This record gives sequence, C-alpha cells and structure tokens, in this order.
Amino acid sequence: MSDDSSVARVTTLVRRLASGLAPGSQLPSTRELARTSGVGPVTVQRAVATLVAEGRIETRPGIGNFVSAARLPRRRDVSWQAAALGPPRPGVPEQPGSGLRGLPDDTIALHSGYPLPLLQAGPLVATAIARAAKDPAAARPAPSTGMAPLRHLIAAELAGGAPQSDIASDDVLVTSGGQAALVAAFRGLARPGDTVVMESPTFWGAIAAAAEAGLTIVPVASRPDGPDPAELEQAVAVHRARVVYAQPTWANPTGTTWSPAVRSAVLDIISSHRAFLVEDDWARDLSLDGQSPGPLISRDTDGHVVHIRSLTKSTTPSLRVAGLVARGPAMHRIRTSRWAADLYVSPVLQLAAAEVLAAPAWPRHLSHLRRELVTRRDALIAAVSEHAPLAELPQVPRGGLSLWLRLPPGADAVTVAARCLQDGVAVSAGDEWFPAEPDGPHLRLGFAAAPPDQFERAARVIGRVLDSA
Amino acid sequence: MSDDSSVARVTTLVRRLASGLAPGSQLPSTRELARTSGVGPVTVQRAVATLVAEGRIETRPGIGNFVSAARLPRRRDVSWQAAALGPPRPGVPEQPGSGLRGLPDDTIALHSGYPLPLLQAGPLVATAIARAAKDPAAARPAPSTGMAPLRHLIAAELAGGAPQSDIASDDVLVTSGGQAALVAAFRGLARPGDTVVMESPTFWGAIAAAAEAGLTIVPVASRPDGPDPAELEQAVAVHRARVVYAQPTWANPTGTTWSPAVRSAVLDIISSHRAFLVEDDWARDLSLDGQSPGPLISRDTDGHVVHIRSLTKSTTPSLRVAGLVARGPAMHRIRTSRWAADLYVSPVLQLAAAEVLAAPAWPRHLSHLRRELVTRRDALIAAVSEHAPLAELPQVPRGGLSLWLRLPPGADAVTVAARCLQDGVAVSAGDEWFPAEPDGPHLRLGFAAAPPDQFERAARVIGRVLDSA
Repeated sequence: MSDDSSVARVTTLVRRLASGLAPGSQLPSTRELARTSGVGPVTVQRAVATLVAEGRIETRPGIGNFVSAARLPRRRDVSWQAAALGPPRPGVPEQPGSGLRGLPDDTIALHSGYPLPLLQAGPLVATAIARAAKDPAAARPAPSTGMAPLRHLIAAELAGGAPQSDIASDDVLVTSGGQAALVAAFRGLARPGDTVVMESPTFWGAIAAAAEAGLTIVPVASRPDGPDPAELEQAVAVHRARVVYAQPTWANPTGTTWSPAVRSAVLDIISSHRAFLVEDDWARDLSLDGQSPGPLISRDTDGHVVHIRSLTKSTTPSLRVAGLVARGPAMHRIRTSRWAADLYVSPVLQLAAAEVLAAPAWPRHLSHLRRELVTRRDALIAAVSEHAPLAELPQVPRGGLSLWLRLPPGADAVTVAARCLQDGVAVSAGDEWFPAEPDGPHLRLGFAAAPPDQFERAARVIGRVLDSA
Repeated sequence: MSDDSSVARVTTLVRRLASGLAPGSQLPSTRELARTSGVGPVTVQRAVATLVAEGRIETRPGIGNFVSAARLPRRRDVSWQAAALGPPRPGVPEQPGSGLRGLPDDTIALHSGYPLPLLQAGPLVATAIARAAKDPAAARPAPSTGMAPLRHLIAAELAGGAPQSDIASDDVLVTSGGQAALVAAFRGLARPGDTVVMESPTFWGAIAAAAEAGLTIVPVASRPDGPDPAELEQAVAVHRARVVYAQPTWANPTGTTWSPAVRSAVLDIISSHRAFLVEDDWARDLSLDGQSPGPLISRDTDGHVVHIRSLTKSTTPSLRVAGLVARGPAMHRIRTSRWAADLYVSPVLQLAAAEVLAAPAWPRHLSHLRRELVTRRDALIAAVSEHAPLAELPQVPRGGLSLWLRLPPGADAVTVAARCLQDGVAVSAGDEWFPAEPDGPHLRLGFAAAPPDQFERAARVIGRVLDSA
C-alpha cells in the first residue's frame, strides 16, 4: 500500500477518533496509534500534522496530542476592514440594476430585462451546447481573442449589411457577455479619471461599467431623435472626452433611434474631436416594426467606432457571449485589458454561439421572436393606456423589450415602484437609468418577461398607485 | 402583406438593382420603383433610406438617387488613435503568458498550463453540461453572486476540512474563472495606485490581474519553505500594502508549499498589519504525493484571507468557473466589482460545475488524475535528468502540473525557449513569472500537456540547446 494512501487512512481514523472524544481529551500516543493502524510512526505524525492544521488536535510537546478544547463559535470580527478598505469606488451601486433582480415567483415581472423562456431560442441553444461539450475544441483553452468561427460569423453579420465595410474577423474580440465588453472598451480606450459622455437616460449597466473603469460620466439629454449634436459636441469639447457611449438604435430604456441627421452629425463630431464612439447594438435582433438603420461602425473606416454586439438577449441567458469590434491600436488596448481580466471565454459557449448563429433555425427564431414581441408590446401599451392613463408613453418603441413611461410631475418613481412591488408587480424605477439627476419621474416596463395575461392586472396596480401618489 | 415585409422586399430589390448598375448611375425614380414593385412611394423611400445608410446609394435632392461612386478600398487611417489613446497602462503585456499560447500541432507542448484531454474530466463534464442546458434554471439570468447549489458546494468543500471553520455559502462568490476572481479581489480590496505584495516568482496571470487593477507589485523572494516572514513583513510595512497575494500550496511555478511556521507567521503579519491575503488555491485538486496542509482561510475568522478556488484545471477548459470566498465589507466590495464587470456567470456552466462537484465519479477522477500526474512528473524528471542535466530541479513538486528548472548562470531563458521552439519544443521561459527582475534564468516545463512518450525527445532538445548556450 502506498505511503500516501496510508496517511490518508490514518488521518481519517484519527479524525474519527478525535470526534468521538470530549474536547481536551488526550489521544492515544503516536506509538499506540502506529501499532493499532499497522503503520510507522512517521505516517502517524503526518496524519496528526494534518489534524493540527485543521484545528482538531493540539500538540503539547513532551506530553501528547489532545482533542482541541471546544470553543464557543467565535464571532467574526471584521470591523478592522472598514479602516483598511478606505473609501469605496464611487458610482457603482452594491446591487445590479433592477432588470436583473430575482423576485418571488408570484410577482409580475415587468422589471426584468430578459425575455421569458418561451421567447428564448431554448431548444436550439441546448442542442448546440450539448454538441459543443463533446467537440474536441472544448478540451483546449480558447484563444484569448475568441474562437475563429464565432469571430468570423460576427464579422460577417456586420459586413453583410454594407459592402463598403471592411470588417474582418481579426477585428472581432469575443467576451463573456455585453457587460464584459463594455468594461473592456472603457478600460482599453480611456484611463481612470477620464470622461465618458453618455446619453441620459441610458443603460444602467453602462453606467456601472464606466464607474468600474474609473471614468467620470458626463450626461447629455436623450431626445426623440437622439442627442442634440451641438450639446454632445460641447460636452465632448468642454470635458475633453475621448469616449462617447451610446445605443443609437432602439436604445435601452427609451426606445429612441437616432435620426440619419444625428447619426451623420455624431460621426463628424467624434471624427473631428479624435474621440471614440462605443456603439452598443444591444437590440440588433430585437426589432419590432422598425428596420434597423444599420450600425454606425459600417460607416466608419478609421476606427472611431467600437461596436458591441451581445447575443444573450436573443438566444438564452446561458449564452454569455458577445462580440466587440474595433480597429487599430485601440483594439490592442482592449484585447490586452480583456485577457488580463478573463484569460479566455469558455469554448463550449463560443462553439454553441457559432452554431446558433449559423443555423437555418436562427432567422426563423428571430422572425418568431419579432412577431411575439410586437404583440406583447401592443398588449402592454393597451393595458397601460386603459388602466394607468397617468403614465404617459412619449414614444412607441420600434425595437427592444420595454416601454419607457413618463409619470406625472411630482411623482417619485422609486416610491411608485416600491408600492407596486408591495402589490405584487415589479417595475423598474427610472432613476437608476440616469447617470446624474433624472429629468423627471419615469418607469421602465418590460413586455417580454411576464405573460401578457398578467398585463391588465399589472396596469391596474400601477394605475391605482399613481392615482394615490 | 404587412408594411414591414414590403419594405424588406423592396429594399432587397433596390439593393440588387444598385449592384447591377455601374457606380454613379442613376436609379429609377421613386415613382417608377413604386409602380414596378406594387407598393406606395413611402415604402420605396424607406428602402432607399436603408441603402443610403449602407452607403450603396446617394441621394441628390431634386435630381434623384444614384449608385454610390466606386471608391478604391479606402485604407484605414487609424494613426489618430496614437495621440488619442495616450500612454498604455503599465504592467500588462499585450499577449497572455506562454501557458496559454496555441502552437502548431507538432510542437511538443511543455509550455501549456492546461492538462491533456485524456487527463480531463471530459465525459463527466459533457454530460453535466448537456443536462444543465435543459434545466429550467438555465433559462433565467443567474444571481450575480452565483447560483446557490454551487456556492453551497464550494463552501462545503472548505468547511468539511475544518469544523471550526465558519464558511457558509453566503461567503462564496462565483466568477467566470480564476483570473476574473483575481481581478475582482484586487479591485475590491485596493485602489489604483495601491501596492500588492507578491512572491517572486509567481503566476503571470496574477501579475497581469494586479496591473489591470492598477496596483503596483512589490516582490518578495520565494524560498523553499515559502517567503521569509521578516522580508514579507518589511515589504508590507514599508509600502503600506493592504494586500498580499500568494499560492501557499504547490505554488505555480515553483511547486513550493509554505511550511507550518511560515503559514502561522504570515497569518500573524496580515492580522497585525490589518491587511488582506489573497490565497490562490489553484492546485487544490492537483496533489501528487503531497497532502495539502489545508487552506489558510480555514484558520481565519476575521476576514483577512480571501480564498480563490478555480475549477478549470481539474475539470475541463470549458468550465470557466471559480469560487471566491471572503467575509465582511471586503466581500461587499468584491461583489460590487464583479457584477459591474460581468453581471452574472452562465447558469449552464454553474449548474454543470455543481453537478460535477457532487458526482460520485468526481473523487474517482481526482484519484485517477493524481496517479497519472505522478507518473508523468516522474517521467519528465527522469528525462530531464538524463538528457538535459544542465537544467537543475531545486525542488520536486508535490502538487501541480510542472517542473521549475534552474538554468546555468549566464543562460538567457528567453533565448533558450526560442531555440527550443525552433526545434519543435515549446517551453515557458521563466522571466514572465517574475513581477520584477528574475533571480536567475529558469524554465517551467509542464508534464500534463504533452504525452510522456515525447518527454525524451523534448529533453534532448533542451539539453542540446543548453549545451550550446
């Protein structure tokens, strides 16, 4: 019998022995233990050393080994950490945004940013994942930039819409989801203390990612056609911002799509100010009755636009995979930040994502998803309009997963959301979507995360809360 | 036919038309297109707008629509980025460490830090992943702290070894792998500009993670029993370091395990200096003929030790999942940093990891892995001893995946590695493992990533290179 398994055997034996004795009891001597277990004293000593390290035995030299005295479970004293840690990093709340919060099953989940299971590409993804798990490539670490088939598909998606585009698979970096891509972009393109210009309101995840990267956010108001280019230019110039973050198509939460004029103007601004635009194309697969004007990166050849395309919301929450597209030294910086943050993304997830994107069933799924989302959007609009008329819908969203509602002046969105939750309806209070001060009380209501037959009840609850606010 | 699909149809039609015409040609008028496609002029205009956005059509107001003039494929001009980006963040190399590099298939891969497929828990993991993909929990975003079953198993692993330990599942955070846990720990515990004390040499991934978190590394020499406690204390005190990073058991790359005296001394030091110890238990499942002295966190009740336990190396490269254990306000900081960096880890990977850890086959896999690794370690030691005697092995590793060899004084490790690679043998030059200057030329040779029948040839190549160096 090997020495190693003898030690293990004796360790288990002595541990059991110690458990059976009262605290403070003396254990049999080393010689005695050696004799009864049929091993040498060195083996016994190795076992004892392990149990000392575990805190079960105390050795009193010259006397013997004793079962550790029982102690009252010692209260943790972590108070020293307060002074040691110092001030927290500003700007990142302790909890993720409400879109990600789990709630009791009987809550109507209008807060969630993720589609219901029946709207997901569940079977397609499950098959792809199962196949990927048996692929030989799943047995090797993936390249830190991502696996070639997936990078190629992401580049092809972009290039297919614009032949002038010169996006190749080398311009694509795979990350473990959109949030990771945001942080990689901010950390690669800017330094802590730098400024990033964002629309207000905007995606709370982007706000947190910027804070995590140590950036200061300068907000520019979001208007129905996009930001006012003059305001945006001023913000970039005054604060010497190198980075602008935006969702130019069916933005989360407003649903706004930038007009052609705003698109051209913003491209001119970032070009003349030698800045970067981080374009978050989160809703690419989530068109409703709009047609996407196409990503801005297709009109940019000099690497001003960094494009992010996440797969999670149109596939399943398990496919934590996104593509980031960038060119030039900026891409080197972003790649460097990524490998240091995460080495590589699971090959199983990448292989599965590539299979899904290339599957004939994929465009069918997207068409099905669109039809379902349109129906649900309209149902929620009707329910709110009838039962919660005090909540205004400034803009019908032509893509995305939610409605952005304006509440009556004087209402407090956080209070409204709390009262709705008490009555079993979860909504997203608008405040967390603003990098700075809200421009008024709002709610975001998702129409993809709760079954439509709950919309009427939910709207009634919201209506009652608003009436009494 | 819905308006939306009409637009799509006409868009495709006009796109095809434009492709067939010479650049600069005028397209049929809006009225003409409307007539021939059987739609209204508004529909045609929407189609045209899309093609303008794609850059295929230019509109000259009052004249008509024209196919965009052909342009020579415009060369990217990313030169503006150099000034815009400014200085790079110091300390993170552009490429990940050599352990992760992919190389041609006929290269003998002694550089890699990941075990061969036949040493992985391939079938066990594939089954678990396939089952997880169909689990209803895979259709919901996971909590940002991680899924309860996996957190519980990770806590139970730790608590099982030490009944005095008070580690509960609430003390566990799931991350997308060990590297992500390192960055989360560094960013949560310290601020950019702070100092972290590390052994020298140490894991290159930790060096990169610290740099990514903006920390300055102060190295302390690694010795056969661990760092000299007096040296470590001085480093902590002089540089006011709040964080010490270490691998106290079978460290990567040296194989060193801290003696009981060093363990106790370091725990005292971090306690009296109100500092944190980030304990990276990377080799927990990779014991050879040693028995792990047990993790330091089991002896710490006041939250000084932050413990990281990655699953990837003992399962498969696809299971990018790790557990981070911390207590007190420090855990809040780390959790906050994590959700801002990655929202949540794929539920499929978490469910699969939990199933693997709880499977009866798991301990059998670990026993099998240990036997295999011992055989391979000994085979590589023999081959190097015989065919590359100029490479010294100061310490036989009792756990882990590689040998740390000292080269003759005057040898240059990077040059030696490059020459070996030319002859088809990939090794890891020691330099990248030192946070500052190497204390001499070294090589790290993995014995788990290449088949043992290649060891003799590899050792001969290394021997020849050293002879001629």
